[in-house]
Amino acid sequence: MTVAIVGAGPGDPGLITVRALDLVRGSEVLVYDRLVSPALVAQAAGAARIARETLTQDDVNGVLVHHGLRGRAVVRLKGGDPFVFGRGGEEVQALAEAGVPYEVVPGVSTLTSVPALAGIPLTHRGLAAQVTVLTGTSGDGEDLDYTRLASTPGTLVIFMGLRRLERLADNLLLAGRPVDEPAAVISRMSLPDARVVVGTLATIAALARELSSPAAVVVGEVAALSYAARLAAAA
Amino acid sequence: MTVAIVGAGPGDPGLITVRALDLVRGSEVLVYDRLVSPALVAQAAGAARIARETLTQDDVNGVLVHHGLRGRAVVRLKGGDPFVFGRGGEEVQALAEAGVPYEVVPGVSTLTSVPALAGIPLTHRGLAAQVTVLTGTSGDGEDLDYTRLASTPGTLVIFMGLRRLERLADNLLLAGRPVDEPAAVISRMSLPDARVVVGTLATIAALARELSSPAAVVVGEVAALSYAARLAAAA
Repeated sequence: MTVAIVGAGPGDPGLITVRALDLVRGSEVLVYDRLVSPALVAQAAGAARIARETLTQDDVNGVLVHHGLRGRAVVRLKGGDPFVFGRGGEEVQALAEAGVPYEVVPGVSTLTSVPALAGIPLTHRGLAAQVTVLTGTSGDGEDLDYTRLASTPGTLVIFMGLRRLERLADNLLLAGRPVDEPAAVISRMSLPDARVVVGTLATIAALARELSSPAAVVVGEVAALSYAARLAAAA
Repeated sequence: MTVAIVGAGPGDPGLITVRALDLVRGSEVLVYDRLVSPALVAQAAGAARIARETLTQDDVNGVLVHHGLRGRAVVRLKGGDPFVFGRGGEEVQALAEAGVPYEVVPGVSTLTSVPALAGIPLTHRGLAAQVTVLTGTSGDGEDLDYTRLASTPGTLVIFMGLRRLERLADNLLLAGRPVDEPAAVISRMSLPDARVVVGTLATIAALARELSSPAAVVVGEVAALSYAARLAAAA
């Protein structure tokens, strides 16, 4: 393997995998996302370190192919979910087309870890049997299909939806979801300034007004199981 | 913290997190799932090691509460997705009700890592903007709502659906999904005997006949991006 596409986890540097940390430490070239912990980047002591945010996606593909073709130990260290909403698929495609050997090392996904850290199980016996995951806009950048989402059973998880939260909640209510349906916003989870607020579809936008990105929105009965909701119930 | 609810990853012991491995090594009591790698269990050299499969869920809750109340370093090491389809929520609830301090350490989720290792991005620009995740039966153990699933946009991921794959594919076709829709089955991913097969909704059940559990089924255009599909196209 010359190029490893590696997930760094949701933010806390302790949530990188053992295999990923080995690869970072042995890398000659490290291309890292903005959300990756500086403590992890510092582990690549001997590597050329390249910040992703300074490059276009096309440039990133080019850097990976260039060093990969020369047989260097290249690590593409990605925050968030490289294979859920990230561009992991596109980078793999570029490497495959150029004939560069590569390996995928999955990381702790924000999709599952962020709700778990907030004490929210995505499914729970008797409450939710399925999960639908989407971003704050559709794949084409258009608005979501609220009519369909209103009748989707189980838990909804919406990423990158914080800025549009009021619109999201209002439209789900208009499309027929109940006003008292539990909803939670989980901000910067696993980081020192993490915050969770829990309310209902009717109250969540006001409650989350001062939270920061990255954030996930959870809509459904399971949101009421979060630690924040339990503390409030006990008070 | 006395009790840590810890995700072990999809199978490969290198896919445990750095923080989780530290906790396992320092544990006094380790309760571990059947799917957890023996190499990881062996890291808890000084701990009382308890196999989950020998206990009921109620017993597991009791063991965690018993040792937790005595202030011992307890690790509940879980394979798969403790907070997606596992009973992580129930164990946390039992600990909270007993007043035992606990911590959740999320792991690499099979939900995101298994498709990633097979080269399948769950979303991809222009192909799929959302993901729906479910198990082979509904939460009540009933059959799935195929009519609704037939019109669900984006990627479907079905866990624990291998035994019912023929029924699943037939019913999705009957409910109106296209016969040539790509579908993949990913068996024992991250383990040495991992296998991936790719076909269409019409062919996938026959192709996957000899695969073993645990397995995930992916239905949607993104299935055609898997390594297996690319190799077949190049041949």
